[in-house]
Amino acid sequence: MAEKIRVGVAGYGTIGTRLADGVALQGDMELVGIADLAPTLSIRALAENGMIGANGVKYNLYLVDGADKSQFDAMGIPVAGTFADLCKSVDIMLDSAPGGVGAKNKENYYDKYGVKAIFQGGEKNSVADVFFHGYANFEKGVGQNYLKLTSCNTTGLIRTVDALDRAFGIEKVAITIIRRVADPGDYHRGLTNALQIDKAPSHQAVDLMTIMPHVNATGILVHTPVTHGHIITVLATAKNGKKITKAEALEVFQKHPRIRVVSIDEGFKGNASLFKYARDLGNRRGDMYEIGLWEDSIVESGNDIMYAINIPQESVTIPETMDAIRASMKMQLTREEGTAATNKYLGIGKFKK
Amino acid sequence: MAEKIRVGVAGYGTIGTRLADGVALQGDMELVGIADLAPTLSIRALAENGMIGANGVKYNLYLVDGADKSQFDAMGIPVAGTFADLCKSVDIMLDSAPGGVGAKNKENYYDKYGVKAIFQGGEKNSVADVFFHGYANFEKGVGQNYLKLTSCNTTGLIRTVDALDRAFGIEKVAITIIRRVADPGDYHRGLTNALQIDKAPSHQAVDLMTIMPHVNATGILVHTPVTHGHIITVLATAKNGKKITKAEALEVFQKHPRIRVVSIDEGFKGNASLFKYARDLGNRRGDMYEIGLWEDSIVESGNDIMYAINIPQESVTIPETMDAIRASMKMQLTREEGTAATNKYLGIGKFKK
Amino acid sequence: MAEKIRVGVAGYGTIGTRLADGVALQGDMELVGIADLAPTLSIRALAENGMIGANGVKYNLYLVDGADKSQFDAMGIPVAGTFADLCKSVDIMLDSAPGGVGAKNKENYYDKYGVKAIFQGGEKNSVADVFFHGYANFEKGVGQNYLKLTSCNTTGLIRTVDALDRAFGIEKVAITIIRRVADPGDYHRGLTNALQIDKAPSHQAVDLMTIMPHVNATGILVHTPVTHGHIITVLATAKNGKKITKAEALEVFQKHPRIRVVSIDEGFKGNASLFKYARDLGNRRGDMYEIGLWEDSIVESGNDIMYAINIPQESVTIPETMDAIRASMKMQLTREEGTAATNKYLGIGKFKK
Amino acid sequence: MAEKIRVGVAGYGTIGTRLADGVALQGDMELVGIADLAPTLSIRALAENGMIGANGVKYNLYLVDGADKSQFDAMGIPVAGTFADLCKSVDIMLDSAPGGVGAKNKENYYDKYGVKAIFQGGEKNSVADVFFHGYANFEKGVGQNYLKLTSCNTTGLIRTVDALDRAFGIEKVAITIIRRVADPGDYHRGLTNALQIDKAPSHQAVDLMTIMPHVNATGILVHTPVTHGHIITVLATAKNGKKITKAEALEVFQKHPRIRVVSIDEGFKGNASLFKYARDLGNRRGDMYEIGLWEDSIVESGNDIMYAINIPQESVTIPETMDAIRASMKMQLTREEGTAATNKYLGIGKFKK
Repeated sequence: MAEKIRVGVAGYGTIGTRLADGVALQGDMELVGIADLAPTLSIRALAENGMIGANGVKYNLYLVDGADKSQFDAMGIPVAGTFADLCKSVDIMLDSAPGGVGAKNKENYYDKYGVKAIFQGGEKNSVADVFFHGYANFEKGVGQNYLKLTSCNTTGLIRTVDALDRAFGIEKVAITIIRRVADPGDYHRGLTNALQIDKAPSHQAVDLMTIMPHVNATGILVHTPVTHGHIITVLATAKNGKKITKAEALEVFQKHPRIRVVSIDEGFKGNASLFKYARDLGNRRGDMYEIGLWEDSIVESGNDIMYAINIPQESVTIPETMDAIRASMKMQLTREEGTAATNKYLGIGKFKK
Repeated sequence: MAEKIRVGVAGYGTIGTRLADGVALQGDMELVGIADLAPTLSIRALAENGMIGANGVKYNLYLVDGADKSQFDAMGIPVAGTFADLCKSVDIMLDSAPGGVGAKNKENYYDKYGVKAIFQGGEKNSVADVFFHGYANFEKGVGQNYLKLTSCNTTGLIRTVDALDRAFGIEKVAITIIRRVADPGDYHRGLTNALQIDKAPSHQAVDLMTIMPHVNATGILVHTPVTHGHIITVLATAKNGKKITKAEALEVFQKHPRIRVVSIDEGFKGNASLFKYARDLGNRRGDMYEIGLWEDSIVESGNDIMYAINIPQESVTIPETMDAIRASMKMQLTREEGTAATNKYLGIGKFKK
Repeated sequence: MAEKIRVGVAGYGTIGTRLADGVALQGDMELVGIADLAPTLSIRALAENGMIGANGVKYNLYLVDGADKSQFDAMGIPVAGTFADLCKSVDIMLDSAPGGVGAKNKENYYDKYGVKAIFQGGEKNSVADVFFHGYANFEKGVGQNYLKLTSCNTTGLIRTVDALDRAFGIEKVAITIIRRVADPGDYHRGLTNALQIDKAPSHQAVDLMTIMPHVNATGILVHTPVTHGHIITVLATAKNGKKITKAEALEVFQKHPRIRVVSIDEGFKGNASLFKYARDLGNRRGDMYEIGLWEDSIVESGNDIMYAINIPQESVTIPETMDAIRASMKMQLTREEGTAATNKYLGIGKFKK
Repeated sequence: MAEKIRVGVAGYGTIGTRLADGVALQGDMELVGIADLAPTLSIRALAENGMIGANGVKYNLYLVDGADKSQFDAMGIPVAGTFADLCKSVDIMLDSAPGGVGAKNKENYYDKYGVKAIFQGGEKNSVADVFFHGYANFEKGVGQNYLKLTSCNTTGLIRTVDALDRAFGIEKVAITIIRRVADPGDYHRGLTNALQIDKAPSHQAVDLMTIMPHVNATGILVHTPVTHGHIITVLATAKNGKKITKAEALEVFQKHPRIRVVSIDEGFKGNASLFKYARDLGNRRGDMYEIGLWEDSIVESGNDIMYAINIPQESVTIPETMDAIRASMKMQLTREEGTAATNKYLGIGKFKK
């Protein structure tokens, strides 16, 4: 592919900042620009660096409707144009605007300018042609105009269930989500010395069934007052009463590029260990693209297999979003080729032996 | 029974304070005294109230080996005698000394003075003749000299699994324990913005199998930085592929005196709601003896049933310890009569319609 | 005084529940009833106890405008009448309705029925004739119809500053408030792994100057993710360059009935120790009326004195509200007599040697 | 200076990892290597990146006494030599070994090999010739063999007090330290829903007086259950009753390269905002070298000035440690030149207008 795919990012928040970084790292994509409404701290940090983001790439800033350009001017933040300008200059938009805004952007811009778009988990499924996961249904997204990504928990969860399913055939999963309640830096939400339970089943179990309709999934979600990564326990049942052993499951997990098998003995005591490790790796923003899976959490329950995973909520959906660009733009046509390209550019799986 | 059973409490800590209160509330028991080593804040609070505890009962203080009586004298805290004096004056001791001390107390005192004893979860199983749960194996404890209680999580968990087992026959459970990491007031342990995972299977699952050997149990435990109550999710499988419906499970739970079925819609959003509710009830120390079980957490997973419970860790084992006294002392001979007597004196189940 | 003063409580929330308990404990007051809008968990807990609250007193429930009586009927919660009925039956109302509602209650009810009222810190100062503190300006409240209490932090803070002022003459204070962000049981507010700073000066410093206009006060407030008690550090400067020694300050604090001088060596390591201690005291809801003051926090800064106090936010304003009833109703005419009567009935100061 | 100063780092923990990064960024220094005992997660993360750290620099690993090289070999982590080898190859060592080990290293290695060394705050003052702060007493460190840095809180605190002192002459400060209790990733310490108070005065106030003996300092420290940055409130009194206005203080702070003046209105709501901002800056590990100082926290208390600062505990001492190398090695001879060189290489102050 001679020409790079031109990509824009709408909404430069927790996910949008990382989508821009992800695109900047893809050798076969060009980050045309980012769009936002106000000179948020994330944009000001970018400006403090001369608008240079990941990989030394310049992040051009476009303003969405309602933005007050004079605010940016007063701070000396360069503005490249309007949201329409950005849409006209790209092949595909990554929409990480607040929930609901994506649907409006589709109607007012993407449809109008004939731009493809990938939406994040906050939008309704109906906004997209395909509810997408890079490993579970890549081929469904190939050539489609509008894809919607699974949310962070569902994205990580499906990595493991899809892997088990391809190896053994899975008919049922029951999950418990120990959900982090806020991101580092959040002040608009939080919980103090309290666990909070949601009505069951959790939406993540329902979403899994949308992507993997042959699996019966349910689960319970409990919010916890931490910021570094959800932990999910999964109990998976194979079809036809087949037993899955710990050794078999472990082998499957160890082979998956986006699953990092860790252990308590190594020092990975919980979600905070993984956050620290990612910072020590020198990853931008201290992020990690892989989910963690504790080897010493894997136990057999009769014929079923149970295990615990860690979901780095800020960054986990970035690889699958890159996959979605590849599928939608037909950069690759199969899950193997699509995910491999993404993994290569993001440096995923290099820790695998 | 004309004479009241004479009971002593060794160790006036988080559990010991509540054991003393529990005994003080039993109309057919007499709290002879409590024993401890140092003038802790709990003992100083008692002294501030003229040594009067629950139900207007006087809590006589005995000193264990190594205690410095002059410390108590200096603070004006009255001392009734030595630990040996206490042992000689009771029919049965409740041992809530720090883990390992109970075994020594047994060797040096209980054996010597021919006193029966009930140990808490911190001791090894070998310290006792029977690993005991009031609802699951009351009859095994009848007339035995040394009983050991299940730990807080296991006690609450077994209430539900035993109830399902008696109704439907249970062959397998898989649990996820979202463990509170410290008690209110603790400074010697804690976790800050981190989830911590233990090696699986959790000891609670293993302990359940000791009490209910016909059930296959496993599970994963994750520590969370909160103080008010563990939450456990349970997935239970009936024998012979029998389906348990949500309605059937709910009915079983609603009938159990020590299970309080609550819902999110009522305002019970999590463990902190239950802690607040217990304070509003005017319960001593803001404690609750019942476990909470969220009606809106119950979901069917194929033929299996999944649900979430709340474990008030400071007080949940008190009723089963009272049951243990009743079994050991042959005050009642069956689980129905034994638990009913305990429930009556502790006011348990009065909220049931 | 032959007849008991008849008191009502509007709003049965965190403060209202405790105001009702406080009145129930006053031997010279009668709790006519409480008023609220919906069958909250606090009211349901009361109903579970047959509407019996502190001191064995019956808490009659009246419904405010907009309440749906059928909801209460469906739950079997007895209703005694309307808010107007309550207002007509009392001498004075304690208004702990949500902020702003008190002002409407005054206009629509208290003025109309000629009932006196005491408002809590959430209302604007203009709602009342006097901004009141039992120790700092009792006499200003005598005979007044409408008093407003200082907020929890200000109430505790003024106890210490007023005491120092009467002993040494204070001209300036600078405070740092380490504010707990939520109450136990709160799910509507919280903070996760974050400190949050407010614009200075904090309103508590400003409020202190309203009550004690001869003192120059300022300060900084930082929110922290805990639920058990604010901690305030205070730096106080005496008039005319007079030095206050640690020994002198300590003596003043030790004499104050509503200041509990504690130390780290005793085991009072922080706010959680005090919360636990209050539970061990057997206080209803595990509350404490006194503020804690750490002896080992007192240090001299040149001629100034610096110290740290703990504010039990749920219960600290109850004694001063009882004082306010006494002042408004002329039950006592001086701060010495008024606060002494309150202290006697609440059991405050019995820990003093 | 033609030749680069050769630097080693002993102890690759929270501080050591960042010291290595700091040296790697200094254009006039060469990071010869790092030394540690075991293949910790930080070292494994380094190995996962082919031992490449900040600025593309290779971090050669040396093993201290007691290390088991076979552990490293088994993991494929390259080892460059022994601690003695490292000491022989450097001009100066940065010792960030656990508290107390530094003194032994000095005795067994630095003295022996004639290597200069900079110790961190965990060592006793007696280990060094000078207790050092880059801005407050640079000249005292010039040419000295052994320097000890102030701890994180003291380092940040002194930046502001020294700046005020040079502008106005300070005679007294009273501080309140709202201390974060653990670093992100810590599992060995923590606090859950509790504030903990230390005996006053805090050691930071005492340390300040060692560095700035003409200032009378005292203060109170309260531990809080957060991981991102301490917050300190400072009340500073000028000599001779001179008044410091808010505008004057602000101007001083804004000029300081290592003080970042921020405001709540910009979105800097607390310590977590600053942590997020540093991650958005793309700083390695999401670190920040500057302390934050809230413009809207500055208030006048009579003639005194009060303000609040944020201390990024993991990274704040790195610049002053680079200063210490410069002083000890006589790379620069004055505080102006020394700190300017450090700031240039660390990119500090580029945000200043």
